Amino acid sequence: MSTGIEALDILAEQFARLPGIGRKSAQRLALALLEYSDEDIQAFVSAVGEAKAKIHRCPICQNLTDREVCPVCANAARDKSVICVVEDARAVMAFERVRSYNGVYHVLHGLISPMSGITPDALTLRELLARLQDDTVKEIIMATGATAEGEATAMYISRLLSPLGVKVTRLAHGIPYGGELEYADEITLSHALAGRRNLE
Amino acid sequence: MSTGIEALDILAEQFARLPGIGRKSAQRLALALLEYSDEDIQAFVSAVGEAKAKIHRCPICQNLTDREVCPVCANAARDKSVICVVEDARAVMAFERVRSYNGVYHVLHGLISPMSGITPDALTLRELLARLQDDTVKEIIMATGATAEGEATAMYISRLLSPLGVKVTRLAHGIPYGGELEYADEITLSHALAGRRNLE
Repeated sequence: MSTGIEALDILAEQFARLPGIGRKSAQRLALALLEYSDEDIQAFVSAVGEAKAKIHRCPICQNLTDREVCPVCANAARDKSVICVVEDARAVMAFERVRSYNGVYHVLHGLISPMSGITPDALTLRELLARLQDDTVKEIIMATGATAEGEATAMYISRLLSPLGVKVTRLAHGIPYGGELEYADEITLSHALAGRRNLE
Repeated sequence: MSTGIEALDILAEQFARLPGIGRKSAQRLALALLEYSDEDIQAFVSAVGEAKAKIHRCPICQNLTDREVCPVCANAARDKSVICVVEDARAVMAFERVRSYNGVYHVLHGLISPMSGITPDALTLRELLARLQDDTVKEIIMATGATAEGEATAMYISRLLSPLGVKVTRLAHGIPYGGELEYADEITLSHALAGRRNLE
Protein backbone atom coordinates (compact mmCIF):
# COMPACT_ATOMS: atom_id res chain seq x y z
CA MET A 1 0.00 0.00 0.00
CA SER A 2 2.55 2.55 -1.15
CA THR A 3 1.41 6.17 -1.16
CA GLY A 4 4.11 7.27 -3.58
CA ILE A 5 5.58 9.47 -0.82
CA GLU A 6 8.65 7.70 0.54
CA ALA A 7 8.90 9.39 3.95
CA LEU A 8 5.19 8.69 4.53
CA ASP A 9 5.58 5.01 3.60
CA ILE A 10 8.55 4.67 5.98
CA LEU A 11 6.56 6.23 8.83
CA ALA A 12 3.54 4.01 8.08
CA GLU A 13 5.83 0.94 8.13
CA GLN A 14 7.05 1.97 11.57
CA PHE A 15 3.47 2.12 12.84
CA ALA A 16 2.63 -1.21 11.16
CA ARG A 17 5.39 -2.89 13.21
CA LEU A 18 3.49 -2.11 16.42
CA PRO A 19 1.10 -4.78 17.76
CA GLY A 20 -2.47 -4.71 16.49
CA ILE A 21 -1.82 -2.04 13.82
CA GLY A 22 -2.63 -3.16 10.28
CA ARG A 23 -1.35 -1.55 7.06
CA LYS A 24 -4.38 0.67 6.65
CA SER A 25 -4.42 1.95 10.25
CA ALA A 26 -0.66 2.53 10.04
CA GLN A 27 -1.15 4.81 7.06
CA ARG A 28 -3.95 6.60 8.86
CA LEU A 29 -1.77 7.19 11.94
CA ALA A 30 1.12 8.45 9.80
CA LEU A 31 -1.18 10.91 8.02
CA ALA A 32 -2.62 12.06 11.35
CA LEU A 33 0.89 12.82 12.67
CA LEU A 34 1.59 14.93 9.57
CA GLU A 35 -1.31 17.19 10.54
CA TYR A 36 0.39 17.90 13.90
CA SER A 37 2.04 21.24 14.58
CA ASP A 38 5.83 21.25 15.02
CA GLU A 39 5.35 21.54 18.81
CA ASP A 40 3.01 18.55 18.88
CA ILE A 41 5.47 16.48 16.83
CA GLN A 42 8.18 17.49 19.28
CA ALA A 43 5.99 16.42 22.24
CA PHE A 44 5.33 13.05 20.59
CA VAL A 45 8.98 12.38 19.79
CA SER A 46 10.18 13.45 23.22
CA ALA A 47 7.56 11.26 24.95
CA VAL A 48 9.06 8.29 23.10
CA GLY A 49 12.62 9.26 24.02
CA GLU A 50 11.82 10.05 27.66
CA ALA A 51 9.94 6.79 28.17
CA LYS A 52 12.82 4.80 26.69
CA ALA A 53 15.42 6.72 28.73
CA LYS A 54 13.63 6.72 32.09
CA ILE A 55 11.98 3.31 32.18
CA HIS A 56 14.02 0.20 32.87
CA ARG A 57 13.49 -3.18 34.51
CA CYS A 58 13.25 -3.46 38.28
CA PRO A 59 16.46 -5.30 39.33
CA ILE A 60 14.37 -7.63 41.51
CA CYS A 61 11.13 -8.55 39.71
CA GLN A 62 12.07 -7.33 36.18
CA ASN A 63 8.82 -5.35 35.91
CA LEU A 64 9.08 -1.96 34.18
CA THR A 65 9.70 0.99 36.48
CA ASP A 66 11.08 4.52 36.52
CA ARG A 67 12.43 4.12 40.08
CA GLU A 68 15.49 2.27 41.28
CA VAL A 69 13.33 -0.59 42.59
CA CYS A 70 9.66 -0.89 41.55
CA PRO A 71 6.96 0.19 44.06
CA VAL A 72 5.79 -3.39 44.64
CA CYS A 73 9.25 -4.74 45.49
CA ALA A 74 10.00 -1.62 47.56
CA ASN A 75 6.78 -1.97 49.58
CA ALA A 76 7.56 -3.52 53.00
CA ALA A 77 3.89 -4.55 53.38
CA ARG A 78 4.00 -6.91 50.38
CA ASP A 79 4.50 -10.58 51.14
CA LYS A 80 7.94 -11.49 49.71
CA SER A 81 7.33 -15.21 50.23
CA VAL A 82 4.92 -15.48 47.28
CA ILE A 83 6.01 -14.71 43.72
CA CYS A 84 3.45 -14.47 40.93
CA VAL A 85 5.21 -15.23 37.61
CA VAL A 86 3.68 -13.37 34.66
CA GLU A 87 4.35 -12.83 30.97
CA ASP A 88 4.63 -9.04 30.89
CA ALA A 89 4.05 -5.69 32.58
CA ARG A 90 0.42 -5.65 31.44
CA ALA A 91 -0.30 -8.79 33.47
CA VAL A 92 1.12 -7.08 36.58
CA MET A 93 -1.16 -4.11 35.94
CA ALA A 94 -4.16 -6.46 35.63
CA PHE A 95 -3.34 -8.13 38.97
CA GLU A 96 -2.74 -4.77 40.68
CA ARG A 97 -6.16 -3.53 39.52
CA VAL A 98 -7.81 -6.50 41.29
CA ARG A 99 -6.10 -5.52 44.57
CA SER A 100 -6.62 -8.96 46.10
CA TYR A 101 -3.01 -10.08 45.65
CA ASN A 102 -0.46 -9.08 48.30
CA GLY A 103 2.60 -11.00 47.14
CA VAL A 104 5.26 -9.86 44.66
CA TYR A 105 5.82 -10.55 40.95
CA HIS A 106 8.33 -11.85 38.48
CA VAL A 107 8.00 -10.64 34.89
CA LEU A 108 9.27 -13.07 32.24
CA HIS A 109 9.08 -10.59 29.32
CA GLY A 110 7.79 -13.28 27.00
CA LEU A 111 6.60 -16.87 26.77
CA ILE A 112 8.45 -19.87 25.42
CA SER A 113 7.37 -20.26 21.81
CA PRO A 114 9.37 -22.55 19.53
CA MET A 115 7.19 -21.40 16.60
CA SER A 116 8.36 -17.77 17.03
CA GLY A 117 11.89 -18.83 17.98
CA ILE A 118 11.54 -17.73 21.63
CA THR A 119 13.60 -20.13 23.72
CA PRO A 120 13.76 -20.26 27.55
CA ASP A 121 16.96 -18.18 27.67
CA ALA A 122 15.08 -15.20 26.18
CA LEU A 123 13.04 -15.07 29.41
CA THR A 124 14.18 -13.73 32.80
CA LEU A 125 14.68 -17.21 34.27
CA ARG A 126 18.21 -16.58 35.57
CA GLU A 127 16.84 -13.65 37.57
CA LEU A 128 13.99 -15.83 38.88
CA LEU A 129 16.41 -18.55 40.03
CA ALA A 130 18.58 -15.91 41.74
CA ARG A 131 15.56 -14.92 43.87
CA LEU A 132 15.26 -18.49 45.15
CA GLN A 133 18.81 -18.67 46.55
CA ASP A 134 17.76 -18.21 50.17
CA ASP A 135 14.53 -19.69 51.55
CA THR A 136 12.45 -16.49 51.67
CA VAL A 137 10.20 -17.67 48.85
CA LYS A 138 7.65 -20.34 49.78
CA GLU A 139 5.37 -20.31 46.74
CA ILE A 140 5.60 -19.56 43.02
CA ILE A 141 2.25 -18.93 41.31
CA MET A 142 2.51 -19.57 37.57
CA ALA A 143 0.17 -16.92 36.17
CA THR A 144 0.94 -17.10 32.47
CA GLY A 145 -2.10 -17.15 30.15
CA ALA A 146 -4.20 -20.20 29.37
CA THR A 147 -2.76 -20.44 25.84
CA ALA A 148 -0.47 -23.11 24.37
CA GLU A 149 2.60 -20.91 25.03
CA GLY A 150 1.37 -19.94 28.51
CA GLU A 151 0.85 -23.59 29.47
CA ALA A 152 4.18 -24.70 27.99
CA THR A 153 6.04 -21.94 29.83
CA ALA A 154 4.30 -22.76 33.14
CA MET A 155 5.18 -26.42 32.70
CA TYR A 156 8.80 -25.68 31.77
CA ILE A 157 9.34 -23.40 34.77
CA SER A 158 7.65 -25.76 37.22
CA ARG A 159 10.02 -28.54 36.08
CA LEU A 160 12.99 -26.17 36.31
CA LEU A 161 12.07 -25.29 39.89
CA SER A 162 11.13 -28.77 41.13
CA PRO A 163 14.68 -29.64 42.41
CA LEU A 164 14.56 -26.51 44.61
CA GLY A 165 11.63 -27.79 46.66
CA VAL A 166 9.63 -24.56 46.34
CA LYS A 167 5.85 -24.97 46.00
CA VAL A 168 4.70 -24.16 42.45
CA THR A 169 1.00 -23.50 41.83
CA ARG A 170 -1.00 -22.56 38.72
CA LEU A 171 -3.89 -20.13 38.31
CA ALA A 172 -7.23 -21.94 38.16
CA HIS A 173 -8.75 -22.44 34.72
CA GLY A 174 -12.48 -22.67 34.30
CA ILE A 175 -15.70 -20.95 33.35
CA PRO A 176 -15.22 -17.17 33.60
CA TYR A 177 -17.51 -15.32 35.99
CA GLY A 178 -20.83 -14.69 34.26
CA GLY A 179 -19.98 -17.21 31.54
CA GLU A 180 -22.79 -19.25 30.07
CA LEU A 181 -21.99 -22.96 29.91
CA GLU A 182 -23.27 -23.32 26.37
CA TYR A 183 -20.76 -20.74 25.08
CA ALA A 184 -17.73 -22.26 26.81
CA ASP A 185 -15.33 -24.01 24.44
CA GLU A 186 -14.39 -27.64 25.00
CA ILE A 187 -10.94 -27.01 26.50
CA THR A 188 -12.35 -24.53 29.03
CA LEU A 189 -15.11 -26.99 29.94
CA SER A 190 -12.70 -29.87 30.39
CA HIS A 191 -10.43 -27.68 32.56
CA ALA A 192 -13.46 -26.62 34.62
CA LEU A 193 -14.46 -30.26 35.06
CA ALA A 194 -10.95 -31.44 35.96
CA GLY A 195 -10.55 -28.61 38.48
CA ARG A 196 -13.90 -29.15 40.19
CA ARG A 197 -13.99 -28.57 43.96
CA ASN A 198 -16.12 -29.71 46.89
CA LEU A 199 -18.92 -27.32 47.75
CA GLU A 200 -18.69 -26.38 51.40
CA MET B 1 -5.70 4.05 33.40
CA SER B 2 -2.52 5.19 35.07
CA THR B 3 0.29 2.65 35.22
CA GLY B 4 2.07 4.43 38.06
CA ILE B 5 5.01 5.08 35.71
CA GLU B 6 4.82 8.71 34.62
CA ALA B 7 6.90 8.50 31.43
CA LEU B 8 4.83 5.50 30.32
CA ASP B 9 1.54 7.31 30.97
CA ILE B 10 2.75 10.34 28.99
CA LEU B 11 3.73 8.13 26.04
CA ALA B 12 0.40 6.26 26.21
CA GLU B 13 -1.45 9.61 26.20
CA GLN B 14 0.43 10.58 23.05
CA PHE B 15 -0.71 7.38 21.34
CA ALA B 16 -4.28 7.87 22.61
CA ARG B 17 -4.42 11.23 20.78
CA LEU B 18 -4.05 9.46 17.44
CA PRO B 19 -7.27 8.53 15.58
CA GLY B 20 -8.81 5.15 16.38
CA ILE B 21 -6.48 4.40 19.31
CA GLY B 22 -8.28 3.82 22.62
CA ARG B 23 -6.74 4.06 26.10
CA LYS B 24 -6.02 0.37 26.30
CA SER B 25 -4.39 0.09 22.85
CA ALA B 26 -2.38 3.23 23.60
CA GLN B 27 -0.90 1.59 26.67
CA ARG B 28 -0.17 -1.55 24.66
CA LEU B 29 1.64 0.45 21.96
CA ALA B 30 3.67 2.37 24.56
CA LEU B 31 4.73 -0.89 26.21
CA ALA B 32 5.62 -2.39 22.83
CA LEU B 33 7.90 0.58 22.06
CA LEU B 34 9.68 0.08 25.39
CA GLU B 35 10.69 -3.40 24.23
CA TYR B 36 12.46 -1.87 21.21
CA SER B 37 16.24 -1.69 21.03
CA ASP B 38 17.83 1.77 21.10
CA GLU B 39 18.40 1.52 17.33
CA ASP B 40 14.76 0.67 16.69
CA ILE B 41 13.61 3.57 18.86
CA GLN B 42 15.94 5.82 16.87
CA ALA B 43 14.49 4.52 13.58
CA PHE B 44 10.95 5.19 14.83
CA VAL B 45 11.71 8.69 16.05
CA SER B 46 13.62 9.63 12.91
CA ALA B 47 10.81 8.32 10.67
CA VAL B 48 8.47 10.74 12.46
CA GLY B 49 10.91 13.65 12.10
CA GLU B 50 11.77 12.91 8.46
CA ALA B 51 8.12 12.60 7.44
CA LYS B 52 7.29 15.92 9.09
CA ALA B 53 10.34 17.64 7.59
CA LYS B 54 10.07 16.30 4.03
CA ILE B 55 6.33 16.23 3.44
CA HIS B 56 4.43 19.42 2.73
CA ARG B 57 1.37 20.49 0.78
CA CYS B 58 1.51 20.71 -3.00
CA PRO B 59 1.27 24.45 -3.77
CA ILE B 60 -1.40 23.72 -6.40
CA CYS B 61 -3.76 21.01 -5.12
CA GLN B 62 -2.74 21.05 -1.41
CA ASN B 63 -2.30 17.27 -1.40
CA LEU B 64 0.65 15.95 0.63
CA THR B 65 3.87 15.47 -1.30
CA ASP B 66 7.63 15.27 -0.86
CA ARG B 67 8.27 16.96 -4.24
CA GLU B 68 7.99 20.60 -5.20
CA VAL B 69 4.71 19.94 -7.01
CA CYS B 70 2.82 16.65 -6.48
CA PRO B 71 3.04 13.97 -9.22
CA VAL B 72 -0.62 14.43 -10.23
CA CYS B 73 -0.33 18.21 -10.76
CA ALA B 74 3.08 17.75 -12.43
CA ASN B 75 1.71 15.17 -14.88
CA ALA B 76 1.06 16.80 -18.28
CA ALA B 77 -1.28 13.93 -19.23
CA ARG B 78 -3.78 14.77 -16.45
CA ASP B 79 -6.79 16.82 -17.44
CA LYS B 80 -6.43 20.18 -15.65
CA SER B 81 -9.98 21.23 -16.58
CA VAL B 82 -11.59 18.90 -13.99
CA ILE B 83 -10.89 19.28 -10.26
CA CYS B 84 -12.08 16.61 -7.82
CA VAL B 85 -12.48 18.24 -4.38
CA VAL B 86 -11.80 15.83 -1.49
CA GLU B 87 -11.52 15.92 2.28
CA ASP B 88 -7.99 14.59 2.71
CA ALA B 89 -4.96 12.80 1.24
CA ARG B 90 -6.54 9.40 1.91
CA ALA B 91 -9.40 10.22 -0.45
CA VAL B 92 -6.88 11.07 -3.20
CA MET B 93 -5.18 7.70 -2.60
CA ALA B 94 -8.57 5.94 -2.89
CA PHE B 95 -9.31 7.66 -6.23
CA GLU B 96 -5.81 6.95 -7.55
CA ARG B 97 -6.21 3.24 -6.74
CA VAL B 98 -9.34 3.12 -8.94
CA ARG B 99 -7.33 4.54 -11.91
CA SER B 100 -10.48 5.64 -13.75
CA TYR B 101 -10.07 9.34 -12.96
CA ASN B 102 -7.81 11.44 -15.14
CA GLY B 103 -8.45 14.94 -13.77
CA VAL B 104 -6.68 16.66 -10.88
CA TYR B 105 -7.57 17.14 -7.20
CA HIS B 106 -8.05 19.75 -4.54
CA VAL B 107 -7.54 18.63 -0.94
CA LEU B 108 -9.59 20.57 1.63
CA HIS B 109 -7.80 19.13 4.70
CA GLY B 110 -11.05 18.89 6.61
CA LEU B 111 -14.81 19.28 6.36
CA ILE B 112 -16.96 22.09 7.69
CA SER B 113 -18.20 20.98 11.09
CA PRO B 114 -19.78 23.55 13.41
CA MET B 115 -19.98 20.83 16.09
CA SER B 116 -16.17 20.45 16.13
CA GLY B 117 -15.58 24.15 15.56
CA ILE B 118 -14.25 23.68 12.01
CA THR B 119 -15.33 26.73 10.01
CA PRO B 120 -14.89 27.25 6.24
CA ASP B 121 -11.70 29.29 6.71
CA ALA B 122 -9.94 26.23 8.17
CA LEU B 123 -10.23 24.58 4.75
CA THR B 124 -8.13 25.34 1.66
CA LEU B 125 -10.89 27.37 -0.03
CA ARG B 126 -8.74 30.40 -0.80
CA GLU B 127 -6.37 28.11 -2.70
CA LEU B 128 -9.32 26.55 -4.56
CA LEU B 129 -10.66 29.97 -5.59
CA ALA B 130 -7.18 30.98 -6.78
CA ARG B 131 -7.23 28.02 -9.18
CA LEU B 132 -10.41 29.35 -10.80
CA GLN B 133 -8.96 32.77 -11.74
CA ASP B 134 -8.50 31.91 -15.40
CA ASP B 135 -10.96 29.71 -17.31
CA THR B 136 -8.88 26.50 -17.44
CA VAL B 137 -11.22 24.72 -15.04
CA LYS B 138 -14.55 23.62 -16.51
CA GLU B 139 -15.83 21.28 -13.80
CA ILE B 140 -15.54 20.86 -10.04
CA ILE B 141 -16.54 17.41 -8.73
CA MET B 142 -17.51 17.60 -5.06
CA ALA B 143 -16.22 14.26 -3.75
CA THR B 144 -16.56 14.71 -0.01
CA GLY B 145 -18.12 11.79 1.88
CA ALA B 146 -21.84 11.08 2.12
CA THR B 147 -21.93 12.21 5.77
CA ALA B 148 -23.61 15.28 7.29
CA GLU B 149 -20.30 17.18 7.23
CA GLY B 150 -19.46 15.96 3.72
CA GLU B 151 -22.86 17.09 2.40
CA ALA B 152 -22.71 20.44 4.18
CA THR B 153 -19.22 21.13 2.85
CA ALA B 154 -20.25 20.17 -0.71
CA MET B 155 -23.28 22.45 -0.48
CA TYR B 156 -21.25 25.35 0.97
CA ILE B 157 -18.59 25.14 -1.74
CA SER B 158 -21.09 24.80 -4.57
CA ARG B 159 -22.80 28.02 -3.38
CA LEU B 160 -19.43 29.74 -3.01
CA LEU B 161 -18.53 28.85 -6.60
CA SER B 162 -21.90 29.52 -8.25
CA PRO B 163 -21.11 33.21 -9.11
CA LEU B 164 -18.02 31.99 -11.02
CA GLY B 165 -20.13 30.05 -13.54
CA VAL B 166 -18.03 26.87 -13.22
CA LYS B 167 -19.97 23.58 -13.41
CA VAL B 168 -20.15 21.90 -9.98
CA THR B 169 -21.12 18.22 -9.78
CA ARG B 170 -21.50 15.77 -6.89
CA LEU B 171 -20.51 12.09 -6.68
CA ALA B 172 -23.52 9.80 -7.09
CA HIS B 173 -25.02 8.34 -3.92
CA GLY B 174 -26.76 5.00 -4.03
CA ILE B 175 -26.62 1.30 -3.34
CA PRO B 176 -22.95 0.20 -3.18
CA TYR B 177 -21.90 -2.46 -5.70
CA GLY B 178 -22.85 -5.90 -4.36
CA GLY B 179 -25.14 -4.28 -1.79
CA GLU B 180 -28.32 -6.13 -0.87
CA LEU B 181 -31.39 -3.88 -0.91
CA GLU B 182 -32.68 -5.19 2.40
CA TYR B 183 -29.50 -4.07 4.20
CA ALA B 184 -29.43 -0.55 2.75
CA ASP B 185 -30.39 2.15 5.26
CA GLU B 186 -33.24 4.55 4.51
CA ILE B 187 -31.09 7.53 3.55
CA THR B 188 -29.07 5.44 1.08
CA LEU B 189 -32.29 4.03 -0.39
CA SER B 190 -33.90 7.44 -0.76
CA HIS B 191 -30.70 8.76 -2.43
CA ALA B 192 -30.70 5.76 -4.76
CA LEU B 193 -34.33 6.38 -5.64
CA ALA B 194 -33.91 10.12 -6.17
CA GLY B 195 -30.85 9.51 -8.37
CA ARG B 196 -32.47 6.82 -10.54
CA ARG B 197 -31.51 6.78 -14.22
CA ASN B 198 -33.05 5.58 -17.47
CA LEU B 199 -31.91 2.12 -18.48
CA GLU B 200 -30.53 2.21 -22.00
